[in-house]
Amino acid sequence: MDLGDVPFSTDIFDVVNDPSVDIVVELIGGYDAAKELVLAAVRNGKHVVTANKALIAVHGNEIFEAADKAGVVVAYEAGVAGGIPVMKAVREGMAANRIDWIAGIINGTGNYILTEMRAGREFSEVLKEAQDLGYAEADPTFDVEGIDAAHKLTILASAGFGVPLQFEKGFTEGISKITPYDIAHAELLGYRIKHLGIARRREDGIELRVHPTLVPKSHLIAQVDGVLNAVLVDGDAVGQTMYYGPGAGDEATASAVIADIVDVARGVACGSSQRVPYLGFEPDAIEELDVLSMEDVQSAYYLRITALDRPGVLAKIASVLSEHGINIESIMQKESELKDGRIPVIILTHTVQERQMNRSIEELEGLSDIDGQVIRIRAENFN
Amino acid sequence: MDLGDVPFSTDIFDVVNDPSVDIVVELIGGYDAAKELVLAAVRNGKHVVTANKALIAVHGNEIFEAADKAGVVVAYEAGVAGGIPVMKAVREGMAANRIDWIAGIINGTGNYILTEMRAGREFSEVLKEAQDLGYAEADPTFDVEGIDAAHKLTILASAGFGVPLQFEKGFTEGISKITPYDIAHAELLGYRIKHLGIARRREDGIELRVHPTLVPKSHLIAQVDGVLNAVLVDGDAVGQTMYYGPGAGDEATASAVIADIVDVARGVACGSSQRVPYLGFEPDAIEELDVLSMEDVQSAYYLRITALDRPGVLAKIASVLSEHGINIESIMQKESELKDGRIPVIILTHTVQERQMNRSIEELEGLSDIDGQVIRIRAENFN
Repeated sequence: MDLGDVPFSTDIFDVVNDPSVDIVVELIGGYDAAKELVLAAVRNGKHVVTANKALIAVHGNEIFEAADKAGVVVAYEAGVAGGIPVMKAVREGMAANRIDWIAGIINGTGNYILTEMRAGREFSEVLKEAQDLGYAEADPTFDVEGIDAAHKLTILASAGFGVPLQFEKGFTEGISKITPYDIAHAELLGYRIKHLGIARRREDGIELRVHPTLVPKSHLIAQVDGVLNAVLVDGDAVGQTMYYGPGAGDEATASAVIADIVDVARGVACGSSQRVPYLGFEPDAIEELDVLSMEDVQSAYYLRITALDRPGVLAKIASVLSEHGINIESIMQKESELKDGRIPVIILTHTVQERQMNRSIEELEGLSDIDGQVIRIRAENFN
Repeated sequence: MDLGDVPFSTDIFDVVNDPSVDIVVELIGGYDAAKELVLAAVRNGKHVVTANKALIAVHGNEIFEAADKAGVVVAYEAGVAGGIPVMKAVREGMAANRIDWIAGIINGTGNYILTEMRAGREFSEVLKEAQDLGYAEADPTFDVEGIDAAHKLTILASAGFGVPLQFEKGFTEGISKITPYDIAHAELLGYRIKHLGIARRREDGIELRVHPTLVPKSHLIAQVDGVLNAVLVDGDAVGQTMYYGPGAGDEATASAVIADIVDVARGVACGSSQRVPYLGFEPDAIEELDVLSMEDVQSAYYLRITALDRPGVLAKIASVLSEHGINIESIMQKESELKDGRIPVIILTHTVQERQMNRSIEELEGLSDIDGQVIRIRAENFN
């Protein structure tokens, strides 16, 4: 490529040490070198635009503090949901709202896989196809285990709720154990399985969790298919809003990076380094709300229980759930699925604390009428 | 209501003449008084935040010019799609993109009516219900004839494409002639009828039109039901993005108004009146692109033709369309719908210029085998 008069160097620190540079754009990804580069840029009084969600989610508090001291901007729109200007919506457009919860399909690879699995295909087969198509990395862990989504959710939650970045305290469950069977049965119950990042602000702390989730098929987010992303943001004034579009790809990322550069340049032109606080809240308004443990999370649940075909087994299951205060919304058991004396029982519960659910599942798995492990997938109604 | 120490007056000009006022928030609606108030505020060096789409669509060029001269901001996020921060997305988030087209469900009343009509109910019946529920005004013209949507579309198009506001040149067709029959037959063809505002930037001008539109049921915007709004924005870098949420209501509007006030205040605090140009483009970058006449618009079409039940009539229809270069995508004629020797023929065409379609319809209506008028509803695939 002919760069013309644009200076080129193989040493990244040449850029941050060049006095003629105003804005450093960091697109290298990862933690160590990126962190060193960004902090050096900030210390040298340069604004930074980055697409590095991992860096912000893990080292953001430190980076923002350094930037605040140096009076420079660190912008990261491209790090969250790629080309969708959702950070701008959360930090600026929703400024009047107390944001109650955020939920998003924020990893395109995972959404592509779950979408394809609706045709009855196995996870491993679709993953291989996604790798062949270039949608998934050779090592797909970051995508399918939800780590990438957790990075983005951490940032969304902090800017939405005004709390410090706490990536390490979030809960992450991937989609590798989802089966076409569960997808099909969720559909029969009127639900679709999506890999969601969910953050909820509660009195006692925040929920911060990425896991496969049943959502009503009638909800707009259930209709977001393929590699596309969508983020639901619920504010106390406006209600539910949703932001949808390409969450990855060269041009979508470039779209967000350039919008950030324009924003920074407009700030510089008007003599102000940082117009909007990094996390949408002034540093002294950041609330030290902890991330709740998964046991304290509230959710509905889809359960798949393999029962021995004996009289009274349904009554026993219902009684265990009832003893733990868990109400059943739907139950499904089909004679046609009886095999080797075993029959799957599918249950959808109302919302309950995860602690109660853990105890019920432990008790259910101890019953002599139940075979093997109880499969559990969380469910949300978003109403 | 106890206003405490907040000064109160019954003369709106007291506010714009008060030297202690920095920002005037105009929520009175309408043209004349609002225009006088806003221009007076601007001339007095006050920033303005307004939810008045009609004012901006019709008098925006004049108001923005005056504001530019006075060095103040006129912000209008609440005027377009209520609580959805879509103007921020178009003016700032998509700054890197050449926006190719914008399409939106931007009138909640119309969308509510079309949604309810899917159950087979007539327009007039649902309109009455919407009026009883307070979704529709006693005089529903602005909503159901698409004028309100045209105001919003005018603003979206100007900020999206960087062209002057040209409300008076847009095309507007309402939903009062849509029948449950056409809704049901569109569904059979895989389409849903939505009342859309569509703006497209073309080499020779811009398309600016509000009308009932068939959209593929599989497209996300087809799934937006009830009083909710959604705006699709297609940029050359990012591709299709969508912004969804409540387009009206006290609190949703307040959400956008307050976000604008925060924006203006942040600008004032950083010593700059206007960070982002009113229409997203610097005044000298505004392009004098004309609105194209409806005859020059390109669209696909749903046609309902009442044919006499005679041999060869389908061949005659097909031949008229073919002579005008119109290709048929789907055709549907059901023997069970034969009544009094007449049978409806439903045709979905490929994209063609409206001029060609007008000529074909004229010719079709002249055929002795065709009874009455040809019903025509435009269709878009958004792919």
